[in-house]
Amino acid sequence: MARLRAAIETKKSCLVVGLDPDLERLPPETFSQIGQRASGGEGATARASVAFVMFLEHVIEAVQDSAVAVKPNCAFFERYGAVGWDALRLVCQRAQQAGLLVILDAKRGDIGHTATAYADGLLGDLPDTLGPLVDAVTLSPYLGRDSIDPFLQAVSTAGKGLFILVRTSNASAGEIQDLEVNSRPLHVHVAERVREWGVDSEDADGWSPVGAVVGATDAAHGATIRSVLDKRFFLVPGIGAQGGRPEDLRAFFTSAGEGVIVNASRSILFAYEKRRGPWRDAIRDAAQEIRQELERVRQP
Amino acid sequence: MARLRAAIETKKSCLVVGLDPDLERLPPETFSQIGQRASGGEGATARASVAFVMFLEHVIEAVQDSAVAVKPNCAFFERYGAVGWDALRLVCQRAQQAGLLVILDAKRGDIGHTATAYADGLLGDLPDTLGPLVDAVTLSPYLGRDSIDPFLQAVSTAGKGLFILVRTSNASAGEIQDLEVNSRPLHVHVAERVREWGVDSEDADGWSPVGAVVGATDAAHGATIRSVLDKRFFLVPGIGAQGGRPEDLRAFFTSAGEGVIVNASRSILFAYEKRRGPWRDAIRDAAQEIRQELERVRQP
Repeated sequence: MARLRAAIETKKSCLVVGLDPDLERLPPETFSQIGQRASGGEGATARASVAFVMFLEHVIEAVQDSAVAVKPNCAFFERYGAVGWDALRLVCQRAQQAGLLVILDAKRGDIGHTATAYADGLLGDLPDTLGPLVDAVTLSPYLGRDSIDPFLQAVSTAGKGLFILVRTSNASAGEIQDLEVNSRPLHVHVAERVREWGVDSEDADGWSPVGAVVGATDAAHGATIRSVLDKRFFLVPGIGAQGGRPEDLRAFFTSAGEGVIVNASRSILFAYEKRRGPWRDAIRDAAQEIRQELERVRQP
Repeated sequence: MARLRAAIETKKSCLVVGLDPDLERLPPETFSQIGQRASGGEGATARASVAFVMFLEHVIEAVQDSAVAVKPNCAFFERYGAVGWDALRLVCQRAQQAGLLVILDAKRGDIGHTATAYADGLLGDLPDTLGPLVDAVTLSPYLGRDSIDPFLQAVSTAGKGLFILVRTSNASAGEIQDLEVNSRPLHVHVAERVREWGVDSEDADGWSPVGAVVGATDAAHGATIRSVLDKRFFLVPGIGAQGGRPEDLRAFFTSAGEGVIVNASRSILFAYEKRRGPWRDAIRDAAQEIRQELERVRQP
């Protein structure tokens, strides 16, 4: 968390770039290097994985000055099996080398001893796993405290961070998360659990590395959840392709203008679809523009 | 679902064997074959993965007559990175060859286009991925319908099944799942969503392949959730090591004595720790005994 706060100040940025690669949308240059049948058939998983590494290495280079972290989502790599999982590790490695923090978007949530296995694999120290490369991970709260405990262990022993799903940015998020419990939406109760779960790992300034995922699509949620979780980081997805706007995020920050990192994925990754010029420049420019827009909100 | 109902009748069994391997608890024979430093250091992930495949191939052989399905949990393989993911695929392949259904315990839950990537990887048809080997998958409901939709697609096009977390078996399950919403616990509302989500895929008999995970640790939950979800399968974890007893499961079945499969993991996998004789026999005997105990409940 200290590293994250330092990166935000140094880079004047609260931008996180989501690494959610989609084979059908890669730049023609990258796509053509792996052959025509990349989206199916024999060897498709290996070709897709190679393409992802090639593409995302360029993305990392293009955003390393404007972003504080990258957020690869496991799903897009897991989709291609073991070789996809290897690609994910290479991408995390490259991000680490570029001085970017790595937030692994895994949304895992499982019972006690299984949660320990997930925590070991995603935040542990075994060579050839993601653990040594990942700084923070996203988790689902549905199974309660004992699904979080093994990760809290990694928070305290290895200096990692957690972002627990509180209120997500998707259209049907409210179906479960907004159900009313004692006159308040369920997600506020979840925010209270997140506060509890992070109390033991607060630092001298009162900041805890146990944060929350709070979607950008409704400013009211940001304000309510902030009133429950003071010195915690919010990882905020949902701007750009999902419809949230940077200027709506003011209420998400603490009164001191801290505690928010904002994820943009497709609007940066595939920026070349809507811009002229070389595709890497389009990605670099899109990331810089979003960083600046966010700075106008963070430091008005 | 038709395949599952047929397997239950043919094998006179509703037993699912959870494949949750733990390196520290493998039989000495398996462990010694991979060398002494298997639990750490260079090459540890590969050695662990090889040990898992060797061990679980024997487990599958030992339980193939008494179980209808195996349920590998991703966490225990993901823990060892890409090579662990490959081991998981080999294990699923072997289970399929042995005529066992494969329920992948993944507990995934993510937004729209990410959920599509997960559904593609876990239930799709790409060679070298788990998709072609997996019959059903477990999912988390916290993000609502659009996190389930891409999986519902695989249900209708590829004949797959889903088990959505409703009430889990862990000690802190109630922390979120039992919060009261309109005078009823949250998990009952989730059960209602599961009912809705599966309506479109009901077969001619009214059975839907969209089922629920319902922990064995409290019989009252089984009865309540059954009153909401009639012709749906419950995947019931929590007997054995977690404290649930087969005789408590009567209320989980439909009035016709159907709709339940029961998972046992550690009490079968590591049965040799508490039994004399060769370790494979211990596993075989433990599985047969639990199968028989469950049959006394299913067909009293």
